[in-house]
Amino acid sequence: MKRLAAALVLSTAIAQAAHAPTASARDGGAPAVPAAVQSATPALAAYMRDSLYGDVWQRPDLSPRDRSLVTLAALVARNQADDMPDEVDRALENGVRAAELSELITHLAFYTGWGNAVSAAEVAAAAFAERGIGTGQLPAADPTLLPLDAEAEARRESFVQERFGDVSPGVVDKTRDLLFLDLWLRPALTPRDRSLVTVSALVATGKVEQMPFHLNKAMDNGLTKPEASEVLTQLAFYAGWPNVFSALPVAKEVFAAREEK
Amino acid sequence: MKRLAAALVLSTAIAQAAHAPTASARDGGAPAVPAAVQSATPALAAYMRDSLYGDVWQRPDLSPRDRSLVTLAALVARNQADDMPDEVDRALENGVRAAELSELITHLAFYTGWGNAVSAAEVAAAAFAERGIGTGQLPAADPTLLPLDAEAEARRESFVQERFGDVSPGVVDKTRDLLFLDLWLRPALTPRDRSLVTVSALVATGKVEQMPFHLNKAMDNGLTKPEASEVLTQLAFYAGWPNVFSALPVAKEVFAAREEK
Amino acid sequence: MKRLAAALVLSTAIAQAAHAPTASARDGGAPAVPAAVQSATPALAAYMRDSLYGDVWQRPDLSPRDRSLVTLAALVARNQADDMPDEVDRALENGVRAAELSELITHLAFYTGWGNAVSAAEVAAAAFAERGIGTGQLPAADPTLLPLDAEAEARRESFVQERFGDVSPGVVDKTRDLLFLDLWLRPALTPRDRSLVTVSALVATGKVEQMPFHLNKAMDNGLTKPEASEVLTQLAFYAGWPNVFSALPVAKEVFAAREEK
Repeated sequence: MKRLAAALVLSTAIAQAAHAPTASARDGGAPAVPAAVQSATPALAAYMRDSLYGDVWQRPDLSPRDRSLVTLAALVARNQADDMPDEVDRALENGVRAAELSELITHLAFYTGWGNAVSAAEVAAAAFAERGIGTGQLPAADPTLLPLDAEAEARRESFVQERFGDVSPGVVDKTRDLLFLDLWLRPALTPRDRSLVTVSALVATGKVEQMPFHLNKAMDNGLTKPEASEVLTQLAFYAGWPNVFSALPVAKEVFAAREEK
Repeated sequence: MKRLAAALVLSTAIAQAAHAPTASARDGGAPAVPAAVQSATPALAAYMRDSLYGDVWQRPDLSPRDRSLVTLAALVARNQADDMPDEVDRALENGVRAAELSELITHLAFYTGWGNAVSAAEVAAAAFAERGIGTGQLPAADPTLLPLDAEAEARRESFVQERFGDVSPGVVDKTRDLLFLDLWLRPALTPRDRSLVTVSALVATGKVEQMPFHLNKAMDNGLTKPEASEVLTQLAFYAGWPNVFSALPVAKEVFAAREEK
Repeated sequence: MKRLAAALVLSTAIAQAAHAPTASARDGGAPAVPAAVQSATPALAAYMRDSLYGDVWQRPDLSPRDRSLVTLAALVARNQADDMPDEVDRALENGVRAAELSELITHLAFYTGWGNAVSAAEVAAAAFAERGIGTGQLPAADPTLLPLDAEAEARRESFVQERFGDVSPGVVDKTRDLLFLDLWLRPALTPRDRSLVTVSALVATGKVEQMPFHLNKAMDNGLTKPEASEVLTQLAFYAGWPNVFSALPVAKEVFAAREEK
């Protein structure tokens, strides 16, 4: 099929226009409230300006950079590429590096599904092109990996192998070879940030049964309890209250079990 | 970035064309079956005309207006803005007022995620513009609130505070200040309708663990059992059978517990 | 509202351009890696070529045709119509017939929600038009149905009626009349393939509580354990690892219960 570069440009212009901001100036790094939100839902526009951008994003205990990682993870996990361009801008302003953004997308291909990552890559490609960021500045396909914690991986592998080795050898093998001996060891995103976006994606898609392993791993990787607590506050807005209320009891148990140790 | 109003118009035309109806006249308030559905999936087109529009939407026990609220809640919750224009038309024909539609979107920002509401606001903005409905006819950001049931709110707050106050103070505080002392008291949508769209959104996204609180609240707010029962029938089509079958045992328990009282 | 056929053509061109492949030749039936993935996420591009297309799709125990059915079911279930055109091409190359594709979409209207099927029908309509496939070659709305296993259906109906007949008579009646006495008996998709896409859709959307019934039905309909095991491997990529890890314990229980018999 013939595919037109011109159509891509037009498509981008349309996507931008659909989220066209009001004339009001942007408040720091916060995206402007879309004109349609202002005209059709003035109350939502006010909540957005006052409660979300003016309050939640400014709360201590979680940095603006981390809030950007959490928000981008939620958008990728929920396949909301339409909302990504403004948040990619804000993330880069908040100190997320292009290489980290690229790696976040690659990571979430495995944790949220391939199509979600492909859609996000298209948004990132446009943002990178606009800024003159070339492939040479992005994580290579085959970098030198971080050192493996062989003991922890042996425990994980034997736990999974024992339970599910006979149920789906393919899943068990790919989990080991692609995720824990490869993806998680790629150096372009720290293990702590990798865990942060993984936990955010799990909460944002309601996969709470997978949270204990990954929230523990996140805290082992350096995420603090106050940070994890604020991740949930941030996600209440971007993934909806019900997803966060279903995550609260799981977080409570993980926190309690770690404090008992 | 330059954003073009013209592109927005074009984008709307494209979105409409993608769901272009066949030449056949519309049957009452029901949207026409899209031409693509007729040509690629004749069986689906027949189910749509005969079973969904010709039967389910006509069933007693839930009014067409309520079915529109349920359907719109499902579309917002599942982020299916592409399917919304026709259902917004039908909702307005079925007696949902523009102010209620605006408020439904604001409400669901909190219950389904911000991006979902922003996408819905864009559809509503186009529908309102077409009908000459201005911001003055829509709910203000800061209205006089409905009176608070202080006792019930004290019970809710103390229950949540006790369980999760230490897990995420941010979530607990925002839940109280933004949701129960503000959003739920906004007068542009009755508490019963607010509950109706909340329950619909929970079923439509599989958040059944949050259903007992909200289905009870809905019935306290006036939703009858036959209505709740038909909400599930409507949602089987718009959110898929599996979401509804996972909601059935929860609804059964809520109904039984209320009958025992 | 005026709807323009020209806009539909343009819309399709834009959708295609957004997923424009690199210049590199397609590898057999595998779609080319989108240019944006190559430029913004070179690591993801490499995983896509080497691990997903070059390895997973080639694994034995599940045929390329079945992998296409599983992948399409996941895309419909997750409402990722943007990713469907390439996978529709691949499915047709892998031996899925147009009539089967049409029927898969009709089936998934009920199992994943109406809007998902309508979006998929639009992609299929474009693919059928391109190949000159007319409605006459697609499943009719009212075919001669397959024979009913009356005993099994009586068991199913009485189980559901007893539990939920009073909770939602509408759901129970529509489940019997539309799904089990009609949809499942339509001849354009074999019961085994119907089960395959149903199970895939359940895993892809995290509805694991509905899996035992449908995985058992799938295996009764001829899906083997090694095939079911590889369905999970395929879905790890297209629906994300967490959905598959939540499905593993359910599959394990179903497999174990069947082996005990």
